[in-house]
Amino acid sequence: MKKHKVQTGWKKKIHEIIYEADTPSGKVFDIMLFVLIVISVILVMLESIEEVDQNYHQTLLTLEWVVTIFFTLEYIARLVSIKKPWKYALSFYGIIDFVSTIPLYLSYILAGSQVLLAVRAFRLLRIFRILKLVKFIGEASQLQAAMRASRTKIAVFIYVVLILSVILGTLMYLIESDEAGFTSIPRSIYWTIVTLTTVGYGDIAPQTDLGQFFATIIMILGYGIIAVPTGIVTVEFSKQNREKNNQHDIVHLNTQACTNCSAEGHRDDASHCYNCGHPL
Amino acid sequence: MKKHKVQTGWKKKIHEIIYEADTPSGKVFDIMLFVLIVISVILVMLESIEEVDQNYHQTLLTLEWVVTIFFTLEYIARLVSIKKPWKYALSFYGIIDFVSTIPLYLSYILAGSQVLLAVRAFRLLRIFRILKLVKFIGEASQLQAAMRASRTKIAVFIYVVLILSVILGTLMYLIESDEAGFTSIPRSIYWTIVTLTTVGYGDIAPQTDLGQFFATIIMILGYGIIAVPTGIVTVEFSKQNREKNNQHDIVHLNTQACTNCSAEGHRDDASHCYNCGHPL
Amino acid sequence: MKKHKVQTGWKKKIHEIIYEADTPSGKVFDIMLFVLIVISVILVMLESIEEVDQNYHQTLLTLEWVVTIFFTLEYIARLVSIKKPWKYALSFYGIIDFVSTIPLYLSYILAGSQVLLAVRAFRLLRIFRILKLVKFIGEASQLQAAMRASRTKIAVFIYVVLILSVILGTLMYLIESDEAGFTSIPRSIYWTIVTLTTVGYGDIAPQTDLGQFFATIIMILGYGIIAVPTGIVTVEFSKQNREKNNQHDIVHLNTQACTNCSAEGHRDDASHCYNCGHPL
Amino acid sequence: MKKHKVQTGWKKKIHEIIYEADTPSGKVFDIMLFVLIVISVILVMLESIEEVDQNYHQTLLTLEWVVTIFFTLEYIARLVSIKKPWKYALSFYGIIDFVSTIPLYLSYILAGSQVLLAVRAFRLLRIFRILKLVKFIGEASQLQAAMRASRTKIAVFIYVVLILSVILGTLMYLIESDEAGFTSIPRSIYWTIVTLTTVGYGDIAPQTDLGQFFATIIMILGYGIIAVPTGIVTVEFSKQNREKNNQHDIVHLNTQACTNCSAEGHRDDASHCYNCGHPL
Repeated sequence: MKKHKVQTGWKKKIHEIIYEADTPSGKVFDIMLFVLIVISVILVMLESIEEVDQNYHQTLLTLEWVVTIFFTLEYIARLVSIKKPWKYALSFYGIIDFVSTIPLYLSYILAGSQVLLAVRAFRLLRIFRILKLVKFIGEASQLQAAMRASRTKIAVFIYVVLILSVILGTLMYLIESDEAGFTSIPRSIYWTIVTLTTVGYGDIAPQTDLGQFFATIIMILGYGIIAVPTGIVTVEFSKQNREKNNQHDIVHLNTQACTNCSAEGHRDDASHCYNCGHPL
Repeated sequence: MKKHKVQTGWKKKIHEIIYEADTPSGKVFDIMLFVLIVISVILVMLESIEEVDQNYHQTLLTLEWVVTIFFTLEYIARLVSIKKPWKYALSFYGIIDFVSTIPLYLSYILAGSQVLLAVRAFRLLRIFRILKLVKFIGEASQLQAAMRASRTKIAVFIYVVLILSVILGTLMYLIESDEAGFTSIPRSIYWTIVTLTTVGYGDIAPQTDLGQFFATIIMILGYGIIAVPTGIVTVEFSKQNREKNNQHDIVHLNTQACTNCSAEGHRDDASHCYNCGHPL
Repeated sequence: MKKHKVQTGWKKKIHEIIYEADTPSGKVFDIMLFVLIVISVILVMLESIEEVDQNYHQTLLTLEWVVTIFFTLEYIARLVSIKKPWKYALSFYGIIDFVSTIPLYLSYILAGSQVLLAVRAFRLLRIFRILKLVKFIGEASQLQAAMRASRTKIAVFIYVVLILSVILGTLMYLIESDEAGFTSIPRSIYWTIVTLTTVGYGDIAPQTDLGQFFATIIMILGYGIIAVPTGIVTVEFSKQNREKNNQHDIVHLNTQACTNCSAEGHRDDASHCYNCGHPL
Repeated sequence: MKKHKVQTGWKKKIHEIIYEADTPSGKVFDIMLFVLIVISVILVMLESIEEVDQNYHQTLLTLEWVVTIFFTLEYIARLVSIKKPWKYALSFYGIIDFVSTIPLYLSYILAGSQVLLAVRAFRLLRIFRILKLVKFIGEASQLQAAMRASRTKIAVFIYVVLILSVILGTLMYLIESDEAGFTSIPRSIYWTIVTLTTVGYGDIAPQTDLGQFFATIIMILGYGIIAVPTGIVTVEFSKQNREKNNQHDIVHLNTQACTNCSAEGHRDDASHCYNCGHPL
């Protein structure tokens, strides 16, 4: 069914492996990628623990080189196997692939630099690519659709919560003394959000009777308004669910990417790219 | 459609700018107002941070004067451009506009007064006007309607929670000693609400075995009853939603057919037919 | 419509005032009762605050006498105006009325006794009578019905949560040291419930890496299972709601009590008691 | 209806008592089992409290022997009364029954060993058998079905939450200093999950302004995404509910176990095992 007449054989092969999850080699590649990203993330974490870094520095560095070389090769492969390399290089995932690959190289150029710590953390950005892999799980798209549909409502909700927090936080600043931790309005607002969201660290806590009375009102308010985003999302989910049940012809989208413009989300029965008309 | 025959030209113009959000100049005014309110709120916050206030006192004061002068002019403009100025002056937003504008002037009259801190905080009331602007976001009205419909039910719920808190708080006061922070019944009730709402500061925490056992029951209770407001609001939302769906016909599907092969069911953002590659 | 032929005039009058909320005098009585209970509850609270009790002891005692005398008179009135006084005296609210009235009298008999503190707290039981007044708010019965319908499901849920807490708590006891506060299995279970319900005091918190990793799992678990009671209650509410919409003949119950057997919840159009057949 | 021709009388009798909850003796056995498991669990807990263990060591040990002997006898009875003892012995509950029975015997073999503490905790595994008894409560199966149906969606949700936590935790590690408790990336991720799930111990809390600002965003995020699992579960519940209402022929399953293969969950009207065809 698939016809890639335009590309040469090996480029086509690489494209199939990297960009498509339907072929056996594509699946193996995706799983390998997933494992390497997880290893890479664990390496960054372990490096941040002082004792581990001191005792196993060399091992961690070696493993980091292995991972980095793989990601470098993958980045190059992605560039050469696609028709419009610049489009990929400047896309969201293209930039993430690049930025998360270079830190180890940079560490030799910027050796000893203070900025290095933050740069090394960039390797963690690879985790976003795992997030991309999540779409292969069927249910994710439904969750995403529900979240997207309730976006505006949740924005309005957060907007109101923030305004409430500013007003209540200022009130608490006027009521409570500096000793209890309410040293400035921004800090009081921080406390209000800690309370309203029912997190409640306790690093700042009201000491006076009036402050505690007021805090009580904020808590009950927070307890009540947590119902709002839940209500919004639940209704969206149930709507999605009903639509899915009513809809008898569900169009399945596959994971194939166009070799010409790398657009994704084609219909399973599509033989041409919906974006550029190129044969798939 | 709107006819302001009675008013003179410039009054009509001002009225259009200030009170209407449909005209281009009205929109610009609303956005400017929004930005100025946000700046004003940030200024009040920054003043409350001691270091910032000491180092940038003059800058903050200058900016505050700029904002105050704008709000003064706006207040006057609102009064002159309306037919019944007293009605506006005595309305909720009229009072907020007035009270939030005068603090800087008052600070020269009441100079050195202790009451000044609270008075300066009045400027924060301007934030309520942002709350008013929220209505321009379409979704807000639906949220508001759902909240209004579930008002009585939530009041009953809070009423029961409060009575529960008094009873459980008194019990904890009898069980726990003063050392653990349960120094009086009101303070024990404060702790009960902190626990019931799952905030949990930890400034007061049960020390005895019986107290901890009892706290456990309160927590599980709190965990259970958080379901009640959520249930109430969700049902209201879904009712609102169903009503909205019955009223209007929302078209979800792209009904376009390919001019070449007449295939249907194209993606909304498709520019070419998925079947034959013909441009749509 | 109401015929109280059997009772003498003044008894009938008292019965109407105390037991019925439909007549104007009955409404006034209920509101007065509500206010007195709230005052009584506040008095108990204020007494528990040491400074307040020391400075205003005499005022509080005087007010407490006023409230106690009212409740004593009310209790006697309830007894004499009803046909079967023992039935009332031994009912749930009859016992609460009695137990919450006597503490002040007992304080003179048991003067200086240690047991007095607990006895004085009994006055707080009057708050249950406020809970009874909540039924006059129409929405309460719907909430109650939903809660009753989801009772078994929530019991199963709490049962599973408790078993989970025992298992996870024991595991944390084995993982964490005594220093972090995990001194015994019951205390570890206490911590697990504090975490699972997202209360999180912080009086006990894991210190080791393994303990913190494990705590993370418990938290995410708790975050997930909070959805269960919410789901249960929401579905019940929405069921109640649908039934209410479908049901065209709602039987309204009034607040009148039978003068013979004090049964409540008669149909609005009832002319005889459903319990004993006595004319209403 | 039940025909156990194959087994001898006493084995059949034991099988009925142990494996079936429908007969009176079976019910008595289940209740006795429940009580003994609860006692056993409480014994393990009490032993872990130092003061209790020192003062009542002998009493606890005696009671533990009583419980252990009962469970030993029960284990043997289960083995002899079933046709395929190895199948039971290697099943999940068979292993739990075995492992939770032996610790007391092991304590004499491994006397004085450090490993003993953990081994003694194995007795707590008996609690899983209580979990098994929960199925006798009718509502449990519906809850279970809803949980199973929403399993994938919740897995996707937890996956996204974990990735979010890694990214946000790393960011907080870069923002906050070591003094505030953000000593490594894993610890920062721990803090992020503590915050995101609204637990909020307060053992680690941001100190800098930027850190507190960022924490605020995480809290509001956590407040919002708690809606997702709730929405998922609620929709599943309501689906289950609707299906139950639509379904007129509900097949009731009884608690009887096959004497041949110990398969459970037979239809109430079944006369042969659905698994091996053996007559019930």
